[in-house]
Amino acid sequence: MKGSEALIDAAIKEGVEICFANPGTTEMPLVEAIDMVPGMRPVLGLFEGVCAGAADGYGRMTGRPAMVLLHLGPGLADATANLHNARRAHTPILVVAGEHSSWHRKYDPPLTMDIQALTGTISGWQKTVNFPGEIRGSTVDAISASLQGQISTIIIPFDLQYDEAPEGKIPSPLYTCTANPVEESVISEAARILSGGKKTLLLLGGKALQKEGLMAAARIKAKTGCDLMGEMFPARIDRGAGLPDVQRVPYMPEMALEAFSKYQSIVIAGTRIPVAFFGYKNLPPVFVNETHEIFTLAEDGRDVTMALGTLADALGASTSLEEVLAQPRTFTLPVGKLTPDKICTVLAALQPENAILVDESITTGVMYHTVSSGVKPFTHLTLTGGALGFGLPAAVGAAIACPERRVISFQADGAALYTLQALWTQARENLNITTLVASNGRYDILRYELMRLGIPAAGPAASRFTELPDIDWVRLSEGFGVPAVSVSTAEALIKEFEWALKERGPRLIEMKL
Amino acid sequence: MKGSEALIDAAIKEGVEICFANPGTTEMPLVEAIDMVPGMRPVLGLFEGVCAGAADGYGRMTGRPAMVLLHLGPGLADATANLHNARRAHTPILVVAGEHSSWHRKYDPPLTMDIQALTGTISGWQKTVNFPGEIRGSTVDAISASLQGQISTIIIPFDLQYDEAPEGKIPSPLYTCTANPVEESVISEAARILSGGKKTLLLLGGKALQKEGLMAAARIKAKTGCDLMGEMFPARIDRGAGLPDVQRVPYMPEMALEAFSKYQSIVIAGTRIPVAFFGYKNLPPVFVNETHEIFTLAEDGRDVTMALGTLADALGASTSLEEVLAQPRTFTLPVGKLTPDKICTVLAALQPENAILVDESITTGVMYHTVSSGVKPFTHLTLTGGALGFGLPAAVGAAIACPERRVISFQADGAALYTLQALWTQARENLNITTLVASNGRYDILRYELMRLGIPAAGPAASRFTELPDIDWVRLSEGFGVPAVSVSTAEALIKEFEWALKERGPRLIEMKL
Repeated sequence: MKGSEALIDAAIKEGVEICFANPGTTEMPLVEAIDMVPGMRPVLGLFEGVCAGAADGYGRMTGRPAMVLLHLGPGLADATANLHNARRAHTPILVVAGEHSSWHRKYDPPLTMDIQALTGTISGWQKTVNFPGEIRGSTVDAISASLQGQISTIIIPFDLQYDEAPEGKIPSPLYTCTANPVEESVISEAARILSGGKKTLLLLGGKALQKEGLMAAARIKAKTGCDLMGEMFPARIDRGAGLPDVQRVPYMPEMALEAFSKYQSIVIAGTRIPVAFFGYKNLPPVFVNETHEIFTLAEDGRDVTMALGTLADALGASTSLEEVLAQPRTFTLPVGKLTPDKICTVLAALQPENAILVDESITTGVMYHTVSSGVKPFTHLTLTGGALGFGLPAAVGAAIACPERRVISFQADGAALYTLQALWTQARENLNITTLVASNGRYDILRYELMRLGIPAAGPAASRFTELPDIDWVRLSEGFGVPAVSVSTAEALIKEFEWALKERGPRLIEMKL
Repeated sequence: MKGSEALIDAAIKEGVEICFANPGTTEMPLVEAIDMVPGMRPVLGLFEGVCAGAADGYGRMTGRPAMVLLHLGPGLADATANLHNARRAHTPILVVAGEHSSWHRKYDPPLTMDIQALTGTISGWQKTVNFPGEIRGSTVDAISASLQGQISTIIIPFDLQYDEAPEGKIPSPLYTCTANPVEESVISEAARILSGGKKTLLLLGGKALQKEGLMAAARIKAKTGCDLMGEMFPARIDRGAGLPDVQRVPYMPEMALEAFSKYQSIVIAGTRIPVAFFGYKNLPPVFVNETHEIFTLAEDGRDVTMALGTLADALGASTSLEEVLAQPRTFTLPVGKLTPDKICTVLAALQPENAILVDESITTGVMYHTVSSGVKPFTHLTLTGGALGFGLPAAVGAAIACPERRVISFQADGAALYTLQALWTQARENLNITTLVASNGRYDILRYELMRLGIPAAGPAASRFTELPDIDWVRLSEGFGVPAVSVSTAEALIKEFEWALKERGPRLIEMKL
């Protein structure tokens, strides 16, 4: 068995089923290995940012790592922005980057980069394999490490891929890391604060925002009267009727500060002290202050789901949750020229049960979270790291992870343009993705920020850098093989969206604003 | 004057005239400064790889740095692949990356990355400015350092951009670095080898491949009978009738080894010992061996133009060069279904005098360099670092650098898809760029490499990762506002290409293979 086959064999046996890739010459033995060892599905992205974003969407939905196979430093560089988003989402990913043979790399051929330094910016675990005998072990270690909610990178030189790897069974990983449970004393203290009569917020993040954690939080709320709030940009939040209605930390710092000012105590579960997305002059960088009693039930990485369940039990919380769960609601469908609010309402009204909403809607979606309270249950993925180009690729990964669910990709035009090549993979793999592109022809978020900073948006540079006119999303989408249509009224959006949701395969709707 | 204005003011006074950017919130004061301080042209790229590639094309044509303004770590990450190409081309570039205010960064908000580590992979010079008083000096130092043929990066925190910078004149840079001339003894030794009667190759790279260096090389050839060869992937090579016909080091190692096997002595001018692009089992990583007498006249970074001139003088080389310069030639225009060779011939036959050819044609262009010997004088830019997505953006930069010259962008489809957003900037800035996309629907280079490695290209993964069917370049181009047409015969290509060359503004021709 070649080294490349040893790597693929170990990855498959550890449960890796998908390889999102844009390989090059130095990765060809790994491509051959995917053909030789059954069990890995190959999915091509026309740009590495597509591969990385797809692995992020896949990992958020499955909790398991996909493999991302990249061509040397430049391939990794192209994947880095979306790997940054994945890092912020604590998504498990197995990155495999090829490298020149050691006897060749020393001559510094053109593609040579400092791959270790590059991947150090996004990886929690990394290793360059140095001899064939360590390929299997490194692969299982990488996968095991990724399950802590991080990116693992294996750098594998070309010669090690085609050299024979010694026979042997797949070793067990050097370490098995399980999240330590939260100590009893911490649970007791949280229970004391929540029962203490002060106005208290239970701030939820990470896995606390998935169904099991949310239901435990609902029990805590029903018993203690605390409020629930989710982190600003959750990797994944389960929402809709029958789940507690959890609003998120507002993006605008003034609104966030006001939201937190209502509370005397804040119990943090699965996230961190809330920080402003950007620092502004004359505004504090964090949204809490010395008047708040802050208590951390579970940091990032702890088993927050179990902690919330144990806490609910400790509080003797009831299981009658009727009053704290969102009730199904009906919508009045809007009419007339599209606006961001009408778009949000149409989406919320029509999205089917069990949809996965991949949300990189930026300014157009500002109201969506509020508007969509109480819709049919669905899963909501957001832009965790602020690096644009997350949405279209993540929709690919979510659709591959959950082929029986409808994926809705709610996209700002400016962000979508970063990784529009993902549309081709949507077509190639015939994925059930409905893309809604909000086409306002501007980086509207920057115009808002210019206004905040008191900078005239009409200046030649300010306007040049914030306006993106004359983009035709129907042509771009069709150019990649995804059928598309353009709408500018609510009525047309309703008709096209309803139709698209019934179709198999991808479809894009350009929403002209 | 704010810190942001101090930076822009210093850059303009040091000769920086263009800012290719995709800025974000943390760079808005710099955008304002571009509006406040006259003299900097703002050019938006819809993806940072476009900005970086444009700065590479601009710098190769002008020898001066453009500014590339990027949004924090993710913006820099998206620019990294094309900055890698620029690094390999020794292109001067001034990268300016925003950063969170120091009092905010410590809270690790979502966009935070290790920007220093990231830029360390592509920068020759970098600095994070720490107080307003050092902004001007850091900017002039960065520009001065870039002129050594490298990327300089300034990381500037948000608060330093809007804080007042102390008044003061623009300081001179701390160091002025000039390339040291080649020592006389080295010139004499090179002259001795070239006159020694052995079969000798003068291997040219870097600035030696521009007109002045080439004409000196021609004099040396006329006098000594040596052969001339250019490096495998030159940043810029001036070519055509009236210049010496310099073929390049072949990409295929067997061909390169054969080419070098003809020589007993090799004199290197402005490049390095030639290395294989990829290392292959059973083939040497470098193309020369112990039978070659290797002598370096001038390394990368030395003033190779002057060295060649001095060497020509030392040899008493004549100025009658008729026999060593390429003669104008005529072409028989091909007919029938397009093939790579016909495409190369049509291009060579019709390209106008003084064109700039940005060449990322990969397999389709294999024959172009040979076919185009003796065409009307032009400048040829190639993919120096192997990171795909160079061509369309570099065409933007070349067209902005040389508005009076016709830019022809000769593109492989797979590579063009990496940074196709550049087409939008071509339309927005109404640049005279004619793009020829060779649309074969495959990563043909990988199929070649699979064959070399004896790996079946028909395997599910091997075919999945090398085939990219169903891409419609006319729609993609029109989606970005660039008029486009598709051709599949030589006759149609000739007609459309002739017409496009007469038009102002950008136009794309999809060449179906």
